[in-house]
Amino acid sequence: MLTDTIAAISTPIGEGAIGIVRMSGSDSFKIIDQLFRAKSEKSTWEDKKFKYGYIFDEDRLIDEVMVVKMHAPNTYTRESIVEINCHGGAVPLREILRLCLKNGARLADRGEFTKRAFLNGRIDLAQAESIMDLIQSKTDRGFDIAIQQLEGNLSKKINHIRHALVQLMARVEVGIDYPEEDIEEITYQEIQNDLQRTSKILDDLLKTSRTGKIVREGLKTVIIGKPNVGKSSLMNALLKDARAIVTDIPGTTRDVIEEFLSINGIPIKLVDTAGIRETEDIVEKMGVEKSKSYFNTADLIIFMLNGSEQLTEEDHVLIDKVKGRPAIILVNKSDLEQNIEIDYIKKQFESHQIIYTSMSKDIGVEAIENAIQYMIDEGGTTSTQSEMVSNARHIALIEKSQLHVNEAIKATINRLPYDFIEVDVKEAIELLGFITGDSVSSDLMNEIFGQFCLGK
Amino acid sequence: MLTDTIAAISTPIGEGAIGIVRMSGSDSFKIIDQLFRAKSEKSTWEDKKFKYGYIFDEDRLIDEVMVVKMHAPNTYTRESIVEINCHGGAVPLREILRLCLKNGARLADRGEFTKRAFLNGRIDLAQAESIMDLIQSKTDRGFDIAIQQLEGNLSKKINHIRHALVQLMARVEVGIDYPEEDIEEITYQEIQNDLQRTSKILDDLLKTSRTGKIVREGLKTVIIGKPNVGKSSLMNALLKDARAIVTDIPGTTRDVIEEFLSINGIPIKLVDTAGIRETEDIVEKMGVEKSKSYFNTADLIIFMLNGSEQLTEEDHVLIDKVKGRPAIILVNKSDLEQNIEIDYIKKQFESHQIIYTSMSKDIGVEAIENAIQYMIDEGGTTSTQSEMVSNARHIALIEKSQLHVNEAIKATINRLPYDFIEVDVKEAIELLGFITGDSVSSDLMNEIFGQFCLGK
Repeated sequence: MLTDTIAAISTPIGEGAIGIVRMSGSDSFKIIDQLFRAKSEKSTWEDKKFKYGYIFDEDRLIDEVMVVKMHAPNTYTRESIVEINCHGGAVPLREILRLCLKNGARLADRGEFTKRAFLNGRIDLAQAESIMDLIQSKTDRGFDIAIQQLEGNLSKKINHIRHALVQLMARVEVGIDYPEEDIEEITYQEIQNDLQRTSKILDDLLKTSRTGKIVREGLKTVIIGKPNVGKSSLMNALLKDARAIVTDIPGTTRDVIEEFLSINGIPIKLVDTAGIRETEDIVEKMGVEKSKSYFNTADLIIFMLNGSEQLTEEDHVLIDKVKGRPAIILVNKSDLEQNIEIDYIKKQFESHQIIYTSMSKDIGVEAIENAIQYMIDEGGTTSTQSEMVSNARHIALIEKSQLHVNEAIKATINRLPYDFIEVDVKEAIELLGFITGDSVSSDLMNEIFGQFCLGK
Repeated sequence: MLTDTIAAISTPIGEGAIGIVRMSGSDSFKIIDQLFRAKSEKSTWEDKKFKYGYIFDEDRLIDEVMVVKMHAPNTYTRESIVEINCHGGAVPLREILRLCLKNGARLADRGEFTKRAFLNGRIDLAQAESIMDLIQSKTDRGFDIAIQQLEGNLSKKINHIRHALVQLMARVEVGIDYPEEDIEEITYQEIQNDLQRTSKILDDLLKTSRTGKIVREGLKTVIIGKPNVGKSSLMNALLKDARAIVTDIPGTTRDVIEEFLSINGIPIKLVDTAGIRETEDIVEKMGVEKSKSYFNTADLIIFMLNGSEQLTEEDHVLIDKVKGRPAIILVNKSDLEQNIEIDYIKKQFESHQIIYTSMSKDIGVEAIENAIQYMIDEGGTTSTQSEMVSNARHIALIEKSQLHVNEAIKATINRLPYDFIEVDVKEAIELLGFITGDSVSSDLMNEIFGQFCLGK
């Protein structure tokens, strides 16, 4: 499989100045030699140097191109690579790809170039995964995490933990295999100390995961409050002030409005709900059902109250629902005479931030942004931590391996035979190996690289 | 203006494996040196050779990149060019572009790289225009015309005609400026012969324009016929058989269905109309109005009749409308017993092709395709003619310059003074110069390059 030559269009589909068709594999030089005619007879091929000329299909001129040959092993895939830079339209790209295939290349699978980079040992699995994050990241901070991961910072950390566990295993195994030998045996206490140190490191890593996941996937934020309390104005104010609107999602339904914005480089998915109240209207009921589901799965709730009015029955229902959830409480219309039972509110939300706002007077928007930022960072992580975990697959593997480490700790405390300890430590080592690809199955690879875009 | 350094994203916007930021201008090397750190200390810069490394914003790592410096004047713009190949996502491209701008580059206007190639004399205006045609072409044949134009085939032809006119002018002017000198004077007959030769060449070129324009912009084809005659079946049959469906246009309205298909590399815009009949229903009336407008502006009409029935009043109305228009007549349901007044039809459409079809039995579809092909080529052009005119701007200029040549011919026939002839010949020369850019205004340039995509 790995010996054949693959080809794909490596630039996004659309109209652009430049398009690239890429080939990787041992035949790629031979194939391009059949298609390409240099403009100048005297120009020679040099590694990684552009050559100007034409792509021909027999005698039919296909396009003017710049072609570069890159010699193995100093390439993206560690194989010989050819890149054909042509005009960035659908016809030249399609025609040149067709000619590569006609002359012996195979159409690359999704992510197959990167898969080869992994299989040929240039990058590990976590680095390979970061490449799609780089391409798909919507904000600077998401990109920063991905590039750190590409640089191998997460992999180094994981390898470090894994290495410590392997060394521990070696010392434990000596005790199992040669119980009568005169080798200084590891004590239960030593094992326990080692494992607890590892568990703590995994814990610190998991603490970064909440922020990491939010940075990668966005913070799902729901704005709730009774009708006319100012939800839409808040939404508009946040969107207006957002330093970069990431994307417009055409998700304006009857009752739920979704918008993306970016606060300090973190994507926020903002949902303005119809309100969560009982209703007999069937259509409205559907909207309310949707709102409820948003509410129940939100990472953050922004709860708006009207400071100029006394609390209503509806407010009380919402207060009960919001308590115990991650939320920011807004007392809006703070520019008007205040009639709200503020002491009661404060008592209900002792551990929440309460912010006084006036959407009509543009008061409090920055405070809300800061509060959101605070909520994101409450895991205690610093945003500059370079080995942040952001990928759900990695988080799950770290969580599982920590469970096994903790099981092993229990076994040491209970002075169970070393074999019992060994089983869990081995499991933890293997699970961590799935992150970097030291342990990997072909199913897992297919799943991971199948999420890539074509040509990568 | 031309001395500053411009930058733009040169790949299509979207998610892809590779994205390119391009700079052109004297500062482009200086700017990249501020952003780029090579992976290997010992690697050196060589003309047109990729260097592997990183883009940094101060100490913040932005992306892993491959950078190539191309030295003036052997570049696309004839200026120094830098191409930064990065990960093909929105964040790395945007960030790298931002850094180029921060360090002294200016955001390129649409088409500004190509405009510089033109202003610096690497390509002429017709070649520059062909580049957008290359990028936007939807079919192979449209692409072929564009690439021939980029190779300068049209420009050569235009220059040849222009040169002949300039030489004629020189001989005429000798007669005006030095009437008493003993130089052999050009005769009216010689001028007339020369101009008629030129007019003929322009005529041949204009004959290619109909096909050229169709190949570039598509053939607008309307299917008409009374209800249930088989219009939709024909549409489906043509679409099914089409070798490549160019694109799906979501233009399904109540009464008009539009589809694109490709016959022998020529885009056909196919419209199935509601029928052109009187109606009182307002909504239907709107559909019928639209159908009428399509009908009146169509390049080709496919008129379907039901062979198994006698002609109806509605058929007769349509027959009158189709006569004298470019049309193909289909007698459908030819597998059933024929009751149509076929001799009458043949008499009405003496100069049209009549094809017997059966949509239900899949009879006649290939004949229709051949007939469409024949209609496209009826200008007598061969599809391989390399200096085909396809651009509406070029066609208009050739038409106008031919008018002036013909005026000059009239002047020679009427033995008017040479000055009269000269005015028209000069005008023709200038108009032809607008095609290649030998004569050009900044307004014209703005108009032409403003149609380009960014980064080209």
